[in-house]
Amino acid sequence: MRILVTGGAGFIASNLTPRLLGAGHEVVAVDNLQLGTRAHIRPFLGNPQYTFWKLDLLDLPKVDELFTTHKPDLVWHLAANSDISFGTTYTDFDLKGGTLVTYNILESMRKHDVKRIVFSSSGAVYGEPLMLPTPEDYGPLWPISLYAASKLACEALISAFCFNYDMQAWIYRFGNIVGPNPTHGVSFDFVKKLLKDPRRLEILGDGTQTKPYVYVEDCIDGMAFGFQHAQDRVNCFNLAVEDWTSVRTIAEVTVATMGLSNVEFAFTGGSRGWTGDVPKVRLDTGKLTRLGWKPRLTSDEAIVQTADAIVAQMRAGWGKG
Amino acid sequence: MRILVTGGAGFIASNLTPRLLGAGHEVVAVDNLQLGTRAHIRPFLGNPQYTFWKLDLLDLPKVDELFTTHKPDLVWHLAANSDISFGTTYTDFDLKGGTLVTYNILESMRKHDVKRIVFSSSGAVYGEPLMLPTPEDYGPLWPISLYAASKLACEALISAFCFNYDMQAWIYRFGNIVGPNPTHGVSFDFVKKLLKDPRRLEILGDGTQTKPYVYVEDCIDGMAFGFQHAQDRVNCFNLAVEDWTSVRTIAEVTVATMGLSNVEFAFTGGSRGWTGDVPKVRLDTGKLTRLGWKPRLTSDEAIVQTADAIVAQMRAGWGKG
Repeated sequence: MRILVTGGAGFIASNLTPRLLGAGHEVVAVDNLQLGTRAHIRPFLGNPQYTFWKLDLLDLPKVDELFTTHKPDLVWHLAANSDISFGTTYTDFDLKGGTLVTYNILESMRKHDVKRIVFSSSGAVYGEPLMLPTPEDYGPLWPISLYAASKLACEALISAFCFNYDMQAWIYRFGNIVGPNPTHGVSFDFVKKLLKDPRRLEILGDGTQTKPYVYVEDCIDGMAFGFQHAQDRVNCFNLAVEDWTSVRTIAEVTVATMGLSNVEFAFTGGSRGWTGDVPKVRLDTGKLTRLGWKPRLTSDEAIVQTADAIVAQMRAGWGKG
Repeated sequence: MRILVTGGAGFIASNLTPRLLGAGHEVVAVDNLQLGTRAHIRPFLGNPQYTFWKLDLLDLPKVDELFTTHKPDLVWHLAANSDISFGTTYTDFDLKGGTLVTYNILESMRKHDVKRIVFSSSGAVYGEPLMLPTPEDYGPLWPISLYAASKLACEALISAFCFNYDMQAWIYRFGNIVGPNPTHGVSFDFVKKLLKDPRRLEILGDGTQTKPYVYVEDCIDGMAFGFQHAQDRVNCFNLAVEDWTSVRTIAEVTVATMGLSNVEFAFTGGSRGWTGDVPKVRLDTGKLTRLGWKPRLTSDEAIVQTADAIVAQMRAGWGKG
């Protein structure tokens, strides 16, 4: 099948693409290369099953041209701002890069009669819920970041398009996805900081934030599993693990993986890493596991494997250019 | 207090404005006059407490100028597309007139340090919920119209702005609001159609759709009551009545009010009036009534009073020019 992957040069797509190509699918990847990098797509260039478009998805006529050229069977919509704190400074960043981009994708799907979309949402849509772990049917939804507000707006648009134009959607509310080829995230930040200064590590917040970290291979497996096994009009799943890891533990793992010792942890303080950060996240994973899927790695294992992968990649000079 | 009323020439604002002016408030009304009409603002022009700006709220620099000129104490944000079916034909209509406009309002509030917003959302955000009557904390939220998707996106934006920039919001999820000075709605449509052809009335759907109809004075009272009595950061209330009225009953009331008889009801068929119509709406009103508020009119009474008012207004040639 021909699959359009948005955010095609990003972290998750860089891990998804070889899986899709390996399964015999044709991949049309699109990315504006603002957060995504050429290093992520380089391994696939030249593969006859693979096409890359450098494109800003805010440009609706260009998106229309993309759909005219490669009418896909499925859209795997991963493009988004992935830096939550950024959206607090630039208040239209997630509105444009999330909500408006998703509208453009959906409108192009409608015009070109493309019926299926897989979407990466976020557990952040729950805001700071009273119920932990939080199930998919939790309400009310009061997001506390503009990133999360945009994810909820995208979900709402997808739902309305599905009901009005006979489309079908698989929406995944992610925990924190980690693994090789990151463009952002706590492990990536820690390695970068420690390469610069191996004696002192600045840690946002007080280090007690705890979240479920999901290894990217598990994330991709979970998305594919839900797509294969759920056939409602709008299928929504938390995609996470049952356990969680603290930011302090991530710091300790990173330090150990790099072979460092006596690193001073300099906490910026406060329970949140940044404005809009949800310090304690627990996502109820029962809906997807009852369908038969299970992640292979726990949160702690995902953090350890991620630290290994990132340290190796950064030391090898990965991602430069 | 100085209150900015968006959608200031619309149906609800035309009923709200005299109340605000009567209570001694200063009203800055803004409207692009696409759905709102000059007839709605004419009674207030010349009142020194009242200012009207014809303005498209999509124009952020103009909105900024508005806030610079009249920094309000409170924003009463009513501006929106009110024709749900329209959004199915023009898929960016609610995105622009709802979501982007609300972003512009919130961003201007942030820049000008305006801290409080009252927002007219809709029970449509619940989509087709499994629980009737539907309470405010119901989930999941899968809107089935682009109108409802936009209302949910606006709520999400408001929530994120409140948490990030220390604002406070009162969000009301309306039932169907009816009363004099309509710009749209089923009673208004029926009267218009019957004035044109008093022998035959086209009714969208099969007439069995049942919804709670709220008289506009009750709607305004409810909003004011919640604003005075609820002090959470984000205060969200269903604003409806406990009973409901069928579309067939509305047709019968309208016919009787106009003194007609032997009118043929021509149903277009299907359970929905239009794509994205939710045929059976029941909103749990307990949260607001437990605070001490009660609507004065039932749904049926609201429909009768509305028919009386509209027929009188239309016969008097109201709204022309």
